[in-house]
Amino acid sequence: MEEQSRTLSAMTPKVLRAWYVACPSGELVADKPLVKRIHGRPILLFRGADGRAAALLDRCPHRNVPISCGGVKDGRAWCGYHGWEFEPDGSCTTVPGLDADANGGATGLAARRAMAFPVREQQGFVWVWTDLAHAPDTEPFHFAHADDPDYLTVRRALTTKGSVHMVIENALDVPHTAFLHGGLFRTNTKRRPIRCVVRRFADKVECQYIGEQRPSGLVARLLAPGGGELEHYDRFHLPSISEVEYRLGTDSHLLLRGACTPIDDFETVLYAVVSIKTPLPRMLVRPIIEPIALKIFGQDQWILDKQTDTLKSFGEAKFASTDLDVLGMHILRLMTRAARGEAGDPSADPVEREVTMWV
Amino acid sequence: MEEQSRTLSAMTPKVLRAWYVACPSGELVADKPLVKRIHGRPILLFRGADGRAAALLDRCPHRNVPISCGGVKDGRAWCGYHGWEFEPDGSCTTVPGLDADANGGATGLAARRAMAFPVREQQGFVWVWTDLAHAPDTEPFHFAHADDPDYLTVRRALTTKGSVHMVIENALDVPHTAFLHGGLFRTNTKRRPIRCVVRRFADKVECQYIGEQRPSGLVARLLAPGGGELEHYDRFHLPSISEVEYRLGTDSHLLLRGACTPIDDFETVLYAVVSIKTPLPRMLVRPIIEPIALKIFGQDQWILDKQTDTLKSFGEAKFASTDLDVLGMHILRLMTRAARGEAGDPSADPVEREVTMWV
Amino acid sequence: MEEQSRTLSAMTPKVLRAWYVACPSGELVADKPLVKRIHGRPILLFRGADGRAAALLDRCPHRNVPISCGGVKDGRAWCGYHGWEFEPDGSCTTVPGLDADANGGATGLAARRAMAFPVREQQGFVWVWTDLAHAPDTEPFHFAHADDPDYLTVRRALTTKGSVHMVIENALDVPHTAFLHGGLFRTNTKRRPIRCVVRRFADKVECQYIGEQRPSGLVARLLAPGGGELEHYDRFHLPSISEVEYRLGTDSHLLLRGACTPIDDFETVLYAVVSIKTPLPRMLVRPIIEPIALKIFGQDQWILDKQTDTLKSFGEAKFASTDLDVLGMHILRLMTRAARGEAGDPSADPVEREVTMWV
Repeated sequence: MEEQSRTLSAMTPKVLRAWYVACPSGELVADKPLVKRIHGRPILLFRGADGRAAALLDRCPHRNVPISCGGVKDGRAWCGYHGWEFEPDGSCTTVPGLDADANGGATGLAARRAMAFPVREQQGFVWVWTDLAHAPDTEPFHFAHADDPDYLTVRRALTTKGSVHMVIENALDVPHTAFLHGGLFRTNTKRRPIRCVVRRFADKVECQYIGEQRPSGLVARLLAPGGGELEHYDRFHLPSISEVEYRLGTDSHLLLRGACTPIDDFETVLYAVVSIKTPLPRMLVRPIIEPIALKIFGQDQWILDKQTDTLKSFGEAKFASTDLDVLGMHILRLMTRAARGEAGDPSADPVEREVTMWV
Repeated sequence: MEEQSRTLSAMTPKVLRAWYVACPSGELVADKPLVKRIHGRPILLFRGADGRAAALLDRCPHRNVPISCGGVKDGRAWCGYHGWEFEPDGSCTTVPGLDADANGGATGLAARRAMAFPVREQQGFVWVWTDLAHAPDTEPFHFAHADDPDYLTVRRALTTKGSVHMVIENALDVPHTAFLHGGLFRTNTKRRPIRCVVRRFADKVECQYIGEQRPSGLVARLLAPGGGELEHYDRFHLPSISEVEYRLGTDSHLLLRGACTPIDDFETVLYAVVSIKTPLPRMLVRPIIEPIALKIFGQDQWILDKQTDTLKSFGEAKFASTDLDVLGMHILRLMTRAARGEAGDPSADPVEREVTMWV
Repeated sequence: MEEQSRTLSAMTPKVLRAWYVACPSGELVADKPLVKRIHGRPILLFRGADGRAAALLDRCPHRNVPISCGGVKDGRAWCGYHGWEFEPDGSCTTVPGLDADANGGATGLAARRAMAFPVREQQGFVWVWTDLAHAPDTEPFHFAHADDPDYLTVRRALTTKGSVHMVIENALDVPHTAFLHGGLFRTNTKRRPIRCVVRRFADKVECQYIGEQRPSGLVARLLAPGGGELEHYDRFHLPSISEVEYRLGTDSHLLLRGACTPIDDFETVLYAVVSIKTPLPRMLVRPIIEPIALKIFGQDQWILDKQTDTLKSFGEAKFASTDLDVLGMHILRLMTRAARGEAGDPSADPVEREVTMWV
């Protein structure tokens, strides 16, 4: 139980020193600039001559127009105002009309450099490291089973109002499903108590649900028609990944991951990566599950939009939490510390706590 | 005469410790949440199990979504995100899924309380007391003759740009009628001097017009076809009520009241309550007067919109007043003192002043 | 070469003590109020009884509505709220309904005065002096040859996003023409070095281009079909005039002037005055040149819009200049000093510098 007034900036910790999905690989094609906004900054994505993805701050160092108002040629981005050309590493190789001899050589080149972000391309996503002051000291998140032929993997980019914290708390929140998504997933009847074990690590927090029966809503019936007791974990991984894992016996395994990218403090893209192993015929799963999943996400978008409006209108957050809010405040604490650059001790034992939830 | 630069916040004193009309009674029906904005805050109105009106701050104490995104059932408001339920007094009686034993009993309940505003329902309006820190020490304004069968009473809710102060100064301002409403009410010809006696009390200010002939415009001719000398008072009652009273002999009596509710600093709802006694057949009054009254209000809306834009654009007010501005600055002074919590002495003699106006 | 972070207000020096074009003479007709925004302030223009142009701050001193919501009658502006009347010099001659004897005579009149700006009407433009604290100590800019029958003079009012500084740097910038306007004016091929001599005076800065051949783009071919070496000067005159001058032999002379008026920090009207002497038949010049000139201006509008968005989004400017940016930073320096009221010494020798540009 806690109730405390927090400023909007305390509710939106900016974890810069981290990898974020900038776009699916397929969206970034040769010779075409692509602009994405992360942490409020426009980022120009393009492919170099070798096909590797590159990311520059989309502001020409010369007169501060977007470099993207020009184009990409021979693996270099060129600005549409004066034709300056930039390599994938940000160096400016051409200033049309300039008498190179009289323009300061290396010093001049450094001043004309565009800011370049480290980039990785992995498992079908282009990831950008958003901290220009520190080199990457980790690698992007790995989606288990996303490349596993025994699993059906579906991806979808979903944009919503709401901070990364709000979106992930929502994605990992069990109690709202019986109301906001009433009937689709869980219902508000015949509740039974289950045990929830929360474990907070240095860079993640998880909740294990013990004694949970297969939920009675439509999605759950389809995925696990036989019923039974579930293995169920909800996890948050720094800086912005939600993970829901269900397992029923050895045949059914469901992994729902959401890699969140903050467009701005209160707008987020959730790159959903769902990997499913199920005895159901695979050709049935997608057409049945996808419309329901999108309906559920639409309801979440609606409530996140309302929550965003209310927070902005009041200019503060004042959250009264209960035992049922198993992960939200842990996520905010991990993000706040990471934004401050305080890394936890990875070798320390997790902080563990158990509560009861009627599901 | 005065000319002084005032900030926009000095022009919009916030009198919280007061009653405001939230809605007409008929707009608030059972089992349906109704949201109104007062002083910039969203207020959820609903009816309890006994039918009495209730008002809660429309922000769920749990995760700060609007409670109104859920609904009303059995006289309780429930939040659409996690299903928390609230009584008319704001107490939270249900948190679905929560193991009550482990959640702090009374302490827990207090933290989960929604903020409740005192409410009165009177003469067809739901009134809300907007100060959460102080209990009501007055009752809402009483509209004389609104329930009197000898009078025809017409009500109308009118929304306009402009602060409460601007709207009321406009409603009680005589000189603009010959210009902004030229011909409809007064005209700019054949003017004669009249005496204006202004009396400022602790909680109201009035102007008595002495020697005024029935105006020459259309409305006045209809209401008082015989002409003659009027009794005419304009009054402001704290926090936000304008009152115009005309009497002609014993047969004609007109009371125009505007109860203003500040949606925001520069947006106001004026709940007009007009009570008329006239020798004209009652079935003629409404169809003739109403379109003209709405045309007049439309012109006032137009000028209040322009005035609001200009004040915001300059970021200040700089008003040069003359003797003709009999009430405006008194109203601002009363509101400013009330917003600071400075009550005047109700037993003191009124401050009185007399000026001449050519009408 | 320089790279430095500047605030947005450092990028938009407000030179108040100066003349700006408010409108073309023909736009200001008798008995009709005209409102223009300069430096963010609404200015009411009208003609007095003698036909002379007048300019008042468009805020009624009484209740701060726009005076223009009324009208103009007998050479006086009247406010639409209470009918106050203002002379071209701002004095308030009429307050309808007011008992003049009791209202403070001259003192009262002064307080009711509208703020009046000095005005000049010259060469088809109405100019306004925007500093209310200092009387004019100069006269408006004179457009050479605009009234000369040997020249064809074309005028056009063009509105664009961008500060005065951004618009003028763009108008006087040679290198962008080969990219943003590629093919229309210059091209990015067959470049040859030319000498650029920059001379900064107390109230203007110019660049003389020496050794420039007629450009290879379409406009240049039309205006100077014979080719040859150009005389070419680009000039900035305080507070906001750009001037491009080309001369080829004795037959061809082109003067492009842009008198900029800041609507707001980042919105500008450019009053273009183009005077042309050319051996081409005059009836051919306009239909051929005008559509191309408008296309070029459309491209400049597009890039200035992008530049404005980027500056606002980052909340700062960080410009890396090279030798090719011959005038931009000099213009900003002259404007910044003029905004501070620091006049340069007009008798001092100009600061002179020479660079090479490949054109």
